[in-house]
Amino acid sequence: MPRERSYTLTVRYAETDAQGVVHHANYLIWFEEGRSEFLRQMGMNYSDIERAGFFVVVAHAEINYRAPAFYEDRVTVTTSIEKAHRRLLEFAYRAVNQDGVLLAEGRTVHVVIGKDRRPTSLPEEWLEKLGGLNR
Amino acid sequence: MPRERSYTLTVRYAETDAQGVVHHANYLIWFEEGRSEFLRQMGMNYSDIERAGFFVVVAHAEINYRAPAFYEDRVTVTTSIEKAHRRLLEFAYRAVNQDGVLLAEGRTVHVVIGKDRRPTSLPEEWLEKLGGLNR
Amino acid sequence: MPRERSYTLTVRYAETDAQGVVHHANYLIWFEEGRSEFLRQMGMNYSDIERAGFFVVVAHAEINYRAPAFYEDRVTVTTSIEKAHRRLLEFAYRAVNQDGVLLAEGRTVHVVIGKDRRPTSLPEEWLEKLGGLNR
Amino acid sequence: MPRERSYTLTVRYAETDAQGVVHHANYLIWFEEGRSEFLRQMGMNYSDIERAGFFVVVAHAEINYRAPAFYEDRVTVTTSIEKAHRRLLEFAYRAVNQDGVLLAEGRTVHVVIGKDRRPTSLPEEWLEKLGGLNR
Repeated sequence: MPRERSYTLTVRYAETDAQGVVHHANYLIWFEEGRSEFLRQMGMNYSDIERAGFFVVVAHAEINYRAPAFYEDRVTVTTSIEKAHRRLLEFAYRAVNQDGVLLAEGRTVHVVIGKDRRPTSLPEEWLEKLGGLNR
Repeated sequence: MPRERSYTLTVRYAETDAQGVVHHANYLIWFEEGRSEFLRQMGMNYSDIERAGFFVVVAHAEINYRAPAFYEDRVTVTTSIEKAHRRLLEFAYRAVNQDGVLLAEGRTVHVVIGKDRRPTSLPEEWLEKLGGLNR
Repeated sequence: MPRERSYTLTVRYAETDAQGVVHHANYLIWFEEGRSEFLRQMGMNYSDIERAGFFVVVAHAEINYRAPAFYEDRVTVTTSIEKAHRRLLEFAYRAVNQDGVLLAEGRTVHVVIGKDRRPTSLPEEWLEKLGGLNR
Repeated sequence: MPRERSYTLTVRYAETDAQGVVHHANYLIWFEEGRSEFLRQMGMNYSDIERAGFFVVVAHAEINYRAPAFYEDRVTVTTSIEKAHRRLLEFAYRAVNQDGVLLAEGRTVHVVIGKDRRPTSLPEEWLEKLGGLNR
């Protein structure tokens, strides 16, 4: 750790607001896709995790907004895993535009729950893929 | 028929886009809440319909946009039921702002499916509440 | 005509709803990005159009929903221009998943307005790029 | 201080995700409307602030998620102003459902910028309405 992975998106018109810039709530959606992409690149699919009866839910999120993003910007979101414990995952994110300008940084903490919505533990094979048992 | 019901919303900042007006996709969301409110006012909850194992899915939607809506506008959405058959429902909508200006008109067609996502029929008691067996 | 262009997206978790499928309003957003991508591939940027003082606003939209889309699906949106008149543009769309299943088809009609939000005409150079003066 | 104001919303179907609960990004949108409503109840409209050439932009946001919200829940968002300085505003939020269950708590920090997107100061009359010059 930290392991990190990136993906790039093009800003959608629907993501802008009347200030002419990307609405701040969209960064949480971009970060979430950062996690999805991170898992896919690590050989896991979040779809599979849910099909196996586990939900990874957001317990905490925080974002520092540094510069605005605009329609048609090419934004690269880099996601790293900071903690991978049995019942708790933590990810960090950076979003940078096509000119290398830092747009936002954030962090999310997640807990693992079962179909009954009670806390549970992620299976060890997934934790190992996330690097969580190496330490 | 037509039976109609109204509700009023305040335009959210997040619903605007860089043109300074409400993004056109939000009208589908407002119309959906028009259906929810229509059902509630008819003594049904869409939550109950889903808990009973029925999903009412959108098969067709169309909207004519007449005038822009702005942040903090008070928009009244009026929903009427146009068809209530066992396997098909049709609703119509009008959205009007605080000055009585028509913003948009639309229509959606819905089919009823079960948990297996195959077409099925709504129970008669619900169709009766919707006025569908009176004719 | 018809000229058509495609782009592919990965379904975001935030685009799903409690039915477990993509919420129907998102197709309007995907189609809008289909238009953006169409223009970019034709050598125009909608950002440039707005900077020049023209807004292309949606006057009519319609969608037929054929099959559900799921989180992590790879969806290809194909956009074609159906009409390119001075004051009116019409586009058609098809969204297909990674297995070739047709998810939705739609059509939007647009009018051109100026900064004063009154109808105006697109400059001829843009209409030519869109193929609108060839006929 | 703290001055606080509340408003109540009904959860929209479009706000849910495939976990069957409200997607976590929506809380930022609900909190934003909490700010809007706070300002309206204090005799200010954020529309007026923007028309006067000031934008209040989000510099930091954080949320702790405590319990899930569901479609048709009645959620009360209570907003309080924590800091009202010339160039910086801070708000805190609590979202509670119809049964009094705490769903989420959050905090946002804002800076004031002008039309040129550079930092500026809010006019004193608005700061006074916000209670910021009383201390």
